[in-house]
Amino acid sequence: MVRTLDIIGEKWALLIVRDALRGSSRYSEFRESLGVPTDILSARLASLVDSGILEKRPYREAGSRERASYHLTEAGQGLRVVIAAMLQWNDRFDPAASGPGSVVVDARDGTHLDLVFAAPDGRVVAVDDVDIAPGGGGAWAPRARA
Amino acid sequence: MVRTLDIIGEKWALLIVRDALRGSSRYSEFRESLGVPTDILSARLASLVDSGILEKRPYREAGSRERASYHLTEAGQGLRVVIAAMLQWNDRFDPAASGPGSVVVDARDGTHLDLVFAAPDGRVVAVDDVDIAPGGGGAWAPRARA
Repeated sequence: MVRTLDIIGEKWALLIVRDALRGSSRYSEFRESLGVPTDILSARLASLVDSGILEKRPYREAGSRERASYHLTEAGQGLRVVIAAMLQWNDRFDPAASGPGSVVVDARDGTHLDLVFAAPDGRVVAVDDVDIAPGGGGAWAPRARA
Repeated sequence: MVRTLDIIGEKWALLIVRDALRGSSRYSEFRESLGVPTDILSARLASLVDSGILEKRPYREAGSRERASYHLTEAGQGLRVVIAAMLQWNDRFDPAASGPGSVVVDARDGTHLDLVFAAPDGRVVAVDDVDIAPGGGGAWAPRARA
């Protein structure tokens, strides 16, 4: 779990991944959207490539030199759930006065979506009935709830 | 979203919240479970109280002085989704050789649970069909997918 923090525990890295999930891939897109200093942007992009979150691909526009664009790997795409969880928490417990900075929607029709806990049979479990329990092969046992 | 990082973007703060979600509430429980230096533990507990994630309650055991225990507020309980999302990502993309450090289960029967995206009508939406879109009142429109 701490490894997730190593990757997106820094503000700019988190915002770059969020922008990539929104469809940004070019250096100029990240720079304009985030207003991040260029040296920090370059360092964070390189580090997200090293962590296996982004992959670099060359592209060339007519009359320009070759440039690199940045695309989410499968592990990077997987961060959609983590980022959606953070957005959902902020909307509920610390909403910005200007409204949410990002929303989580069905790409096909724009329906707003929530993260919910589900059992393998598809049954949805209320958050109050969810436990974070020690793993590592130890047997699970019900515990008294505070 | 960045505010979530301000709160749990530091390793020990994240692990304290995880332990609180597992049922820890006393200073000694956090210290033993995490092996965290006492000055850091005290500072992180105070800061989680300041952020409204934990609340402090006095307790006294027979023959001991009064001590404080730390309990998740509603906003703290809400972090269960964020932490579950991180655990799920790690299990899938960066599994520890020793097995998962924590598992997400139904507190009533121990069934392992997953986070899924759901529409208000309860329909589950596949992660590939989920978009993180700019919020803030802008109209949503379908976009070309990479």
